[in-house]
Amino acid sequence: MPIDSNASIEITAFSWVPEPAHGLVKDLRIRWALEEAGLSYRVRLIGGERPAGYQQDQPFNQVPCFNDGNVRIFESGAILQYIGENNEALLPRDPQEKYRAIQWTYAAVNSIEPFVQFRALLGGFWAGEAWAAPAKPTFDQLARLRLQQLSDWLGDKAWLEGDRFTIGDLMMVTVLRLADRSGQLTDFPKLAAYVKRGQARPAFQAALNEQLAAFAANEPQPEGAAA
Amino acid sequence: MPIDSNASIEITAFSWVPEPAHGLVKDLRIRWALEEAGLSYRVRLIGGERPAGYQQDQPFNQVPCFNDGNVRIFESGAILQYIGENNEALLPRDPQEKYRAIQWTYAAVNSIEPFVQFRALLGGFWAGEAWAAPAKPTFDQLARLRLQQLSDWLGDKAWLEGDRFTIGDLMMVTVLRLADRSGQLTDFPKLAAYVKRGQARPAFQAALNEQLAAFAANEPQPEGAAA
Repeated sequence: MPIDSNASIEITAFSWVPEPAHGLVKDLRIRWALEEAGLSYRVRLIGGERPAGYQQDQPFNQVPCFNDGNVRIFESGAILQYIGENNEALLPRDPQEKYRAIQWTYAAVNSIEPFVQFRALLGGFWAGEAWAAPAKPTFDQLARLRLQQLSDWLGDKAWLEGDRFTIGDLMMVTVLRLADRSGQLTDFPKLAAYVKRGQARPAFQAALNEQLAAFAANEPQPEGAAA
Repeated sequence: MPIDSNASIEITAFSWVPEPAHGLVKDLRIRWALEEAGLSYRVRLIGGERPAGYQQDQPFNQVPCFNDGNVRIFESGAILQYIGENNEALLPRDPQEKYRAIQWTYAAVNSIEPFVQFRALLGGFWAGEAWAAPAKPTFDQLARLRLQQLSDWLGDKAWLEGDRFTIGDLMMVTVLRLADRSGQLTDFPKLAAYVKRGQARPAFQAALNEQLAAFAANEPQPEGAAA
């Protein structure tokens, strides 16, 4: 669905971030789920300097927040579940299938993301620190263990629980995109193919384009550019 | 509820872990929730060498797994939600209150735990590594920022959303216990008091005693001890 300024659903997102973070900011998860569910939404763009009182909406000063007039929540996992509660395609009704999907959202953000994230920081943002190179083998081993275990689980399945794409896959694919971007999937072809499957979904493409469009529209102008 | 070998709910836990991990292994979260809900359970104890096929139950070789005959799941966040679905005291029915509670379980395991965990490792398990001391200021700053933001949110409230204890608090308290154990709450008296409030609940005490009783019963004997 296109963004609709009259939509009842509002999410927050950053107006602009530096290029390495393009496509990785976590509002992408919510845009993707809303596109999968065919729900229109509006975006409240915020800058590097957060608006006054923003920590009342998001104590950690992050995005996204979600507000549809019924619930005001943050944390992408909780938002994905809330969207899924009204969309059986994203979150099955059968208890076993439902809680397996929910389980994978937690696995993505707790059993995979921290290891991948810190490993990515060591090779990126922290690469200039004197301790980064000697610390890298330890962090690399941690991340690789988890990625191997996930790859073993996935095997030749299309999605984590078989043929059905759920919010668990949506969350996991967004986490693995960071691993992919930072070169951590080179030795894990099954995971790389899984990320590609996720990214090939039309709803993902629409969501990514919407996030990138906002960044393009708010690209800082070089100093001295014509007013 | 006492552990009951005939209970329909089974969880997995470690038969023994070294002392620094006592009271921190994640089956504690589930034991605590089950005690709060008054549900009896049985425990499948597993050792350092996992039983054959365990990765079919838990791809990352961790505990706890949960099986009540209706659902088989892992990830403590998903298990807490499943228990909460049938216990309004742990997980309110009102959508806003429900998703705020769920939101805090994700905040605990993604916005707080990774920072606290890596900071704890640097001062503990990794303390002998040459890179640990120079890396510590960076990790310390990350963890302190999140703890300060959480403390600011909590303020003088008893629990994260006010007067009502939910699975969000249960998860957050278990995460903050690691921060407390590793000396990270010294400058955050509101968080330290919050942990104490959580630990003072009778259900927490029962859960902790059950975990510790298993470790005591399975303490490795020194080599050469009488058979």
